[in-house]
Amino acid sequence: MRYSDTPHLDSSDAASPQIAAAARAPSIDARLLRVLLRALGSPQVRIVLWTGEAAYEGARAVATLRIADRPTLLRLLIRPELEFGEAYTNGRLHVDGDLVALLEAIFAAPASPLLDGLMSRLRRARGNTPQASRANIHHHYDIGDDFYRLWLDERMVYTCAYFATGAMSLEQAQVAKMNHVCRKVALRSGERVVDAGCGWGALALHMAQHFGVSVRAFNISHEQIAHAREQCRTAGLAGRVEFIEDDYRNISGEYDVFMSIGMLEHVGREHYGELGRVIDRCLAPQGRGLIHTIGRDRPQGTNAWLEKHIFPGAHIPTLREMMDLFEPRGFSVLDVENLRLHYAETLRHWLQRFEGSVDRVTGMFGERFVRAWRFYLAGSIAGFTTGSMQLFQVAFAREACTAIPWTRAHVYERQP
Amino acid sequence: MRYSDTPHLDSSDAASPQIAAAARAPSIDARLLRVLLRALGSPQVRIVLWTGEAAYEGARAVATLRIADRPTLLRLLIRPELEFGEAYTNGRLHVDGDLVALLEAIFAAPASPLLDGLMSRLRRARGNTPQASRANIHHHYDIGDDFYRLWLDERMVYTCAYFATGAMSLEQAQVAKMNHVCRKVALRSGERVVDAGCGWGALALHMAQHFGVSVRAFNISHEQIAHAREQCRTAGLAGRVEFIEDDYRNISGEYDVFMSIGMLEHVGREHYGELGRVIDRCLAPQGRGLIHTIGRDRPQGTNAWLEKHIFPGAHIPTLREMMDLFEPRGFSVLDVENLRLHYAETLRHWLQRFEGSVDRVTGMFGERFVRAWRFYLAGSIAGFTTGSMQLFQVAFAREACTAIPWTRAHVYERQP
Repeated sequence: MRYSDTPHLDSSDAASPQIAAAARAPSIDARLLRVLLRALGSPQVRIVLWTGEAAYEGARAVATLRIADRPTLLRLLIRPELEFGEAYTNGRLHVDGDLVALLEAIFAAPASPLLDGLMSRLRRARGNTPQASRANIHHHYDIGDDFYRLWLDERMVYTCAYFATGAMSLEQAQVAKMNHVCRKVALRSGERVVDAGCGWGALALHMAQHFGVSVRAFNISHEQIAHAREQCRTAGLAGRVEFIEDDYRNISGEYDVFMSIGMLEHVGREHYGELGRVIDRCLAPQGRGLIHTIGRDRPQGTNAWLEKHIFPGAHIPTLREMMDLFEPRGFSVLDVENLRLHYAETLRHWLQRFEGSVDRVTGMFGERFVRAWRFYLAGSIAGFTTGSMQLFQVAFAREACTAIPWTRAHVYERQP
Repeated sequence: MRYSDTPHLDSSDAASPQIAAAARAPSIDARLLRVLLRALGSPQVRIVLWTGEAAYEGARAVATLRIADRPTLLRLLIRPELEFGEAYTNGRLHVDGDLVALLEAIFAAPASPLLDGLMSRLRRARGNTPQASRANIHHHYDIGDDFYRLWLDERMVYTCAYFATGAMSLEQAQVAKMNHVCRKVALRSGERVVDAGCGWGALALHMAQHFGVSVRAFNISHEQIAHAREQCRTAGLAGRVEFIEDDYRNISGEYDVFMSIGMLEHVGREHYGELGRVIDRCLAPQGRGLIHTIGRDRPQGTNAWLEKHIFPGAHIPTLREMMDLFEPRGFSVLDVENLRLHYAETLRHWLQRFEGSVDRVTGMFGERFVRAWRFYLAGSIAGFTTGSMQLFQVAFAREACTAIPWTRAHVYERQP
């Protein structure tokens, strides 16, 4: 699939007279641009300036980027990782060809470590005190269920799915993911589960319905909790699942299993020790748990544009950083699985559905919003396919826990 | 099974007149002992002094420890983690009942963090320069194949086996382990594999024979390499497997897969970055790898007795420490599995076979040696059952590697 926005600008190609001239004597703008592209590792893209000049061209360019004016170029030079998203959103950057392929080409290029280091220092995610967390979460998750319903699966699961076989629909793959994490912790009927950061409640309801457990599910998104409670009533699970609008720091009670799918990204690096203490406080002596999170191979701040517009306060951890959750409390890590290609596939489904509803989204929030979300979804696909982002599921248990499965074979048995 | 050595001392029990008297007025020795036992977290054991006094008794004591004289008690007070092994080896500590259960009770007790911290500071593993490594490895692995042959499986695999089903023999479980690691990295016919720290060569030969790969296998144990070359000739694999008596730091060539089973324990904490650079240097662009190692949930030095007598230079890493291998080079961790209960089971097989050959081992090395090795094997079982030691298999790949399996289901498929 190609998400192209060629109609916005004239797509005249390299054969035009201006470009032929420019190839002989690059303008000052083109020369400035090439400095930036070298620092970015000379990605396989083609860039055309507002004058029509083909200012840069990788030998195996996968798509063309058109820069609309000089101020946009200058902003890109000063702070590319923020301004690329800004300019795309504002329509000052246009892509001829496949946006995902273009972003993959940029992510796959070996960026200068100097630039990378500088970027990391410039990034500073917003804090995550309980109050700030509420504002951060509200920013993203409370923009309306109607919007998310347009492109998520029917259960509204907004985390990486598990495509156990290639033929699965998104709906099937989200159910497969929920079963996958439940099997990993060997969930047993009658157990008490806490779900930290429960989204719209799909996993909490699934665990109660299909694994016979009781669940207390925490979330600070008001809209998500309201939706989850409604689903819970409809499913007749009110006695077995309780949805609580509160911060993970306030989790009380004792549980056999601690589940957290897609919350750690929002916890913030400096609060991992605190989350570890919460788990330690609420986990029974034979307790197990699972953390599902986007991850990194190397420590890196969140992309400035993403942190500003999409996920304020977010931090994506490396496995080493995640160990702050486990090591100080002596939890045993039992199983780590990296599902990055499954997240790329999940996002492809989301982007396809999003594009299918683009008129409705434009009607709801306007064109800038559409371009921002397209950029976020396409950029996320590129992040997972190129390996700049990972998806880790980490199962753990108390050190002395003997209730751990002997092998992982049961996770892969065909279920009745 | 119970490994008891009651014959050495009089096993008179708590009903004796001296003990009844001691219960009323503990001796100064008993009071000293109790200070130590409190620091050790009051383990569920019973301790009888040379006088016959039952100086300490946990409410659910699983076995009895007899201390032969006051000098032994004093040494235990000063440096328990070294002197326990020394005294057991010298026959100044005797166990009535199950040695493994006794050690499990000691390991499972919540030792004072103060004591733990102090111990860690006192421990200082020997260095691992290439020359020191050679001496360290010689110490353990070159004491004679005839000895290891008595209690290892027929292929002489001296690392954790994988009991895929409960009914497996040790031989079957070692083959299952070799298949398990090969499947995890999706080993394909024709690939080039480097085996770092290849032991007696079983895995290198297995990979060539059953997965159709070519292997270069490195080891600095002279005796193991000699044995491996002999096996290689016998199996007619001389053209496909090369055994090289050299340090991992000198690995040359390019490989599709980097395998290392049970070597990292000997590499030493301060050399992980170096090993990471070696992997980076020799791994092809689509390369994958697997590191199999004993691990810890919390950072801790090697037990002083074990480091002195059994594994000089050894360090057992946490997952966080292991990330020094992967993170600086940007390798993606794909899969971590914790198989600690499988190592306990492997060690039970080894200890059983060892006890079955105890007369021959005594004839070869004397009784002190037998007691030291019994203590090492039994202590290792207790370490793995109580969770003070873990067994991690970590599969990884270069960040951009696209040759990674889509799921782990293929690892669990029944093989033809």
